[in-house]
Amino acid sequence: MANAPVQRMSQLMAKTLRDDPADAEVLSHKLLVRAGYVRRTAAGIWSWLPLGKKVLSNVERIVREEMDAIGAQEVSLPALLPREPYEATGRWEEYGAELFRLKDRKGGDYLLGPTHEEIFTLLVKDQCTSYKDLPVILYQIQTKFRDEARPRAGILRGREFLMKDSYSFDLEDEGLAHSYALHRQAYQRIFERLGLDYRICAATAGAMGGSKSEEFLAPAEAGEDTFADCPNCDFAANTEAVSYVLKPVDGSAVPAAEEIPTPDTPTIETLAASLGVPASATLKNLLVKVDGEIVAVGVPGDREVDMGKVEAHFAPATVEMVTETDFAGRADLVRGYVGPQGLEKVGYIADPRVAPGTAWITGANKEGLHAKNVVAGRDFEVDAYVDVVVVQDGDPCPKCGTGLTLDRAIEIGHIFQLGRKYADALKLDVLGQNGKPSRVTMGSYGIGVSRAVAALAEQTADEKGLCWSAEVAPADVHVVAAGKALQTELALEVSDKLAAAGLRVLVDDRAGVSPGVKFTDSELIGVPKILVAGRRAGEGVLELKDRRTGEREELTVDEAIARLSA
Amino acid sequence: MANAPVQRMSQLMAKTLRDDPADAEVLSHKLLVRAGYVRRTAAGIWSWLPLGKKVLSNVERIVREEMDAIGAQEVSLPALLPREPYEATGRWEEYGAELFRLKDRKGGDYLLGPTHEEIFTLLVKDQCTSYKDLPVILYQIQTKFRDEARPRAGILRGREFLMKDSYSFDLEDEGLAHSYALHRQAYQRIFERLGLDYRICAATAGAMGGSKSEEFLAPAEAGEDTFADCPNCDFAANTEAVSYVLKPVDGSAVPAAEEIPTPDTPTIETLAASLGVPASATLKNLLVKVDGEIVAVGVPGDREVDMGKVEAHFAPATVEMVTETDFAGRADLVRGYVGPQGLEKVGYIADPRVAPGTAWITGANKEGLHAKNVVAGRDFEVDAYVDVVVVQDGDPCPKCGTGLTLDRAIEIGHIFQLGRKYADALKLDVLGQNGKPSRVTMGSYGIGVSRAVAALAEQTADEKGLCWSAEVAPADVHVVAAGKALQTELALEVSDKLAAAGLRVLVDDRAGVSPGVKFTDSELIGVPKILVAGRRAGEGVLELKDRRTGEREELTVDEAIARLSA
Repeated sequence: MANAPVQRMSQLMAKTLRDDPADAEVLSHKLLVRAGYVRRTAAGIWSWLPLGKKVLSNVERIVREEMDAIGAQEVSLPALLPREPYEATGRWEEYGAELFRLKDRKGGDYLLGPTHEEIFTLLVKDQCTSYKDLPVILYQIQTKFRDEARPRAGILRGREFLMKDSYSFDLEDEGLAHSYALHRQAYQRIFERLGLDYRICAATAGAMGGSKSEEFLAPAEAGEDTFADCPNCDFAANTEAVSYVLKPVDGSAVPAAEEIPTPDTPTIETLAASLGVPASATLKNLLVKVDGEIVAVGVPGDREVDMGKVEAHFAPATVEMVTETDFAGRADLVRGYVGPQGLEKVGYIADPRVAPGTAWITGANKEGLHAKNVVAGRDFEVDAYVDVVVVQDGDPCPKCGTGLTLDRAIEIGHIFQLGRKYADALKLDVLGQNGKPSRVTMGSYGIGVSRAVAALAEQTADEKGLCWSAEVAPADVHVVAAGKALQTELALEVSDKLAAAGLRVLVDDRAGVSPGVKFTDSELIGVPKILVAGRRAGEGVLELKDRRTGEREELTVDEAIARLSA
Repeated sequence: MANAPVQRMSQLMAKTLRDDPADAEVLSHKLLVRAGYVRRTAAGIWSWLPLGKKVLSNVERIVREEMDAIGAQEVSLPALLPREPYEATGRWEEYGAELFRLKDRKGGDYLLGPTHEEIFTLLVKDQCTSYKDLPVILYQIQTKFRDEARPRAGILRGREFLMKDSYSFDLEDEGLAHSYALHRQAYQRIFERLGLDYRICAATAGAMGGSKSEEFLAPAEAGEDTFADCPNCDFAANTEAVSYVLKPVDGSAVPAAEEIPTPDTPTIETLAASLGVPASATLKNLLVKVDGEIVAVGVPGDREVDMGKVEAHFAPATVEMVTETDFAGRADLVRGYVGPQGLEKVGYIADPRVAPGTAWITGANKEGLHAKNVVAGRDFEVDAYVDVVVVQDGDPCPKCGTGLTLDRAIEIGHIFQLGRKYADALKLDVLGQNGKPSRVTMGSYGIGVSRAVAALAEQTADEKGLCWSAEVAPADVHVVAAGKALQTELALEVSDKLAAAGLRVLVDDRAGVSPGVKFTDSELIGVPKILVAGRRAGEGVLELKDRRTGEREELTVDEAIARLSA
C-alpha cells in the first residue's frame, strides 16, 4: 500500500470552534463538533468531516480485522428492504414508529434496515442446504436507520449510524454457544485495541427474543444505560438483569394476621406515617393485565416496580396497567386496599424480597382496612417469584452479596443467542447428517461503529480536547509550524520524511494563524504525538510533545523520525 | 497490516450455479450470480456475497487511493436527507418518481440521496468563509438510492448502489477547469488500474445543469448508453452531444418555389412515394410547445427528431408535443401541411442539414398542397440552427467528417462543470481577496463503484466465466486440491506459505466434490492464477494455470511461491 500523502491543515476542511455548539449536552458531541470531526445535517443525522471520517475508518478496519480473524465472512446487504420478511417475523409491526417505512414508485412497501436478522436468514436459506454448509458467520459494516423518538447526544444516538452486525448459523446449541464465544472474544480484542474501558454485562434479551445475551458497556457520564457493578467480584449487569436471591425466613413466631382500621391512607407514605412504621414494612400490590387477565405484583412498599422486568417476565404476552373500568363488578378487588391474602381469582407474582416467612402490613381487601402480620406462604401463596423492582445503589450483588454500585454507560456492543426464533418464522432448515431437515439456530451480534467513536471521545478526552489512542487517531503525528517561514520549511521537510517512513502526518502549515491558536487546535484535535517546529527550528531542532502526558523533549529531525517510526 | 487468512472454499458462502438465473438478460448478471458473487434481495436491490464484497472493496480502494492522490478529502455524508435543500434547488420536484421520499415519525419530509450536490454545498457554506479556504475537493464512497422505473441488468442498474461522488469548490472558472482536469486524470488512472476499456465522451449536461461535461463509457453489449465513435480520429461522444456542422450551399440556381397538389399523402413516406423522390428531399416540420408557445422544428424527412436534444436546447423551459386542441383557431397551422415559408407567428428552429441554400419539398400550409424548391434563407428564415436529429451509423464525425460508428456502452463515470447553479440556489459565497462576497463555482464528479464491477465482469469474462484483473480479483491465487488426501494436504500447505508471503489465497479444499467440478468452478470464479495440487502432488509438484491464457506449467512448491509472489 502506498504511503498516505501528508495532510496539510491549510487545505484541510476542519474548521475548529472555540465555543461549544449551543445544542450540545454531552462531551463527545461538544468536542467532535468543536474539533471539526462531525457536523449536524438534520436531527440525529450527521456528516463526518475528513478528520472524523479517518477515525471512523480506523475503527472500521479494527472491527474488520478481528471479525476476519474468527473466520467471519464479510458481505454487504442492502439498506432498503422489502416488507415481506419483516412481516413474516412480526417485526414490521413490532418496531412501531422506530422503523423508517416508505413506498416505491409502484406502491410496494419497503423499510430502511434497523437490523438484518430476516435478510441474513433468507440469504442462508438460499445458500446453505446441508449440514456441511454450517457453521457460518456472516458480517457487514453498514449504515443503519432507526427513527429515534429523541435523537440526542450527537452521534451517540443518531437516526442514521454505522454498525457492524453479524449473524451466526449453527445446527446445534453447542455450535451456537461456540459462535457466541468466538464473538465474545473478538469483541474483547476489538474494544481493547480501540482503547475503550468496558464491562461485559448480563442483559435481558429485550425485543430481539432468544436466550443468552450480554452487553458491552463503556462507562461514561453521557451514557444512556445504567448498569449495576459489583465493587467486590466480577459481576456486572444491565439493571434489568439484576436478580435478588430468594432467602426464605422462619415466620412461625409471627402472630396471626389481624385487620387494622387505616382511614385516610391512600398512599404507602401516608399508611407508613400513620402506623409509625417504615415503608419497607408494607407490601405494595400493583395490578396489571397480562393479555387481558388481571395479575397482582407484590413488592416491598419502599421499592418501585420496573415495568421492563414485568414485561420481560410475561413476554411474549402484552402487559398493561389496570384502569378504573377493570374494577367494575370485581368485589374482590378493592382499590387501594388490595392484599394477596384475599385474592382468589387473580394470579400473584412477588419480588424475592417477599420471601416465604416474611411478614407484612398490606391491604385487607376492604375499604379503609389494612392487615398486619400477613405472612408469605402462611396467609397467601405466591405463584412465582420474579425480581421486578428497580435496582438501587447498594442492593446486594447476586453473586457475592456486596452492595452494588450503579453507573452510567454507553452500549457499544451486544451479543445474543437468538436460538430458532427467526429460523422458525422463515423456515430455515438444512439437511442434517441423518438426511432429515434440521432447523438452524442463530446468534446475532452488533457493534455500534460510529457510536464507538463517540464513546472513545467521551472516555479519552481531557479538559484540552480529544485525545485518541494510536490506532484510531486521524494521524500518527501532528506537526505544528509555529509560524515563521523557516519553521514552516522545517515542518514540511520533517512531514515529508515522516510520511516516507510510513507515518500518517497532519501538518499545521497555516499562514496568518498565531502559534497559540495552532497549539490549542492541536490539543483539541487530539493526535497522540505533536511535533513542533518552533524556537530552535533554525538549528534543526524540534519539540516532541505527548498529547496525553504533556511530556516534552527536544529532538533533531533524524531523532524525531527514529523515535516516531519506532 | 496483517496478512489475510487463507479462505477455504469448504467454509466459504459462495454457492456456484451451473445454469443461468431465469431472469438474467446480460452476461455480468448471469455470471456474477452463477459464480456466487451477488444475490437479488428485491427488484433492483442486491446483496454482495463474500467474493463479490471482496471485488467491490478492491474497486473502492483503488478509487480512494486515486482520489486521495489529487488531494481530495474523504468525508461521509448521510443517505437520509431533509427535504429543504432539495426544495431550494427545485430537485425535490424535478426528480419525479425516481426519488425515494419518506416521512419521519413527526411527519417531516425526507429523501434517500440520489446525489449530494445540495448537502455538500451547505457543508462548504458552513466550513469555508474565505477565499483562503478554497479550492477544496470533497468525496465520499456511499450507498445511493434511485427508484428506477425498470431496474434491470443485475447490478448494472440497481435501485440501491455504491457510488463515489465528489464535488469541487473554486472561486474562479480557471480553478474549476483545474479541478475538472484533476478529476479527469484521476478517472483515467482509476479505470486503467481497474483494467477497464473505456472512452471519454462529450456529453450534454442533462438534468444536472451546468456547462462542460464528459462521460466515461465502457463499451459493452449490455450497455444502456449509445455513443458515437469515430474510427478515424479521437472523437467520441454521447449521441445527444453529436452535432452536424452547418455547411451553407449555393441555392441561387434553384427555381422559384411552386405549389404542387399532393392528395392522400398523410406521411413523409406516402409523399415521397407519390412524387418519386427520396424522403431526404423532403422537409419535416414538427410542432412542439415550449413553455406553452408553439415552435416548429425542421429536419430532413428521412431523419427522426431526438426529443432529448430539443429539450436540452430549450432547458430550463419545458417542451411538450402539440395536441389537436392547439390547432383550434390557428388558420396558419394546417395539420399535415406545415411549411416554414408561411409561418409568421411561430418560431422556427432547424437541423444544420437544413443549411442556407438547401432546397426542399415541404408543406404549403394549405390542405392537400405541398411546395417544392423551397430554399432555406430565401423562402424562409431559421431562427436557430440546432442539431436535433437522432444520430445514425455513418453520420459524419464533427471533427474529421469520417462516418461515425454507433456502439453500446456502460456509463462508468461522469464529470461535470456545474458552475454556480447550486451555489446560487443555496447562496454559497466566500469573502474574496477584495473583501467582498464572491459566489463559488462547483464541479460534480461520479463513479459507479458497484456498476464498475459489473462493467469489468462484462468486458473481461470469457465463455468459461469471470476473469478478473489482478488488482480487483477476490484473491491473488486460487489453489485447487484435486481431491485425494495427499493433494489436499499439499494444497493447504502451499496456501499457508503463499498467505505468509502476503498473497490473498482462496483454496478449494472441499471434500466430496469432483476435480472436474472444482476446475469448472475455478474458471467460473475467475481468480487470475489457479494452482492445482493434482497428479504429481506426491512429488510435491503443482500445476500453475493462467486463467486468461490457459497457459500451464509444472512447479515445485518453492518455485510456485517465488513465481506468484514476484
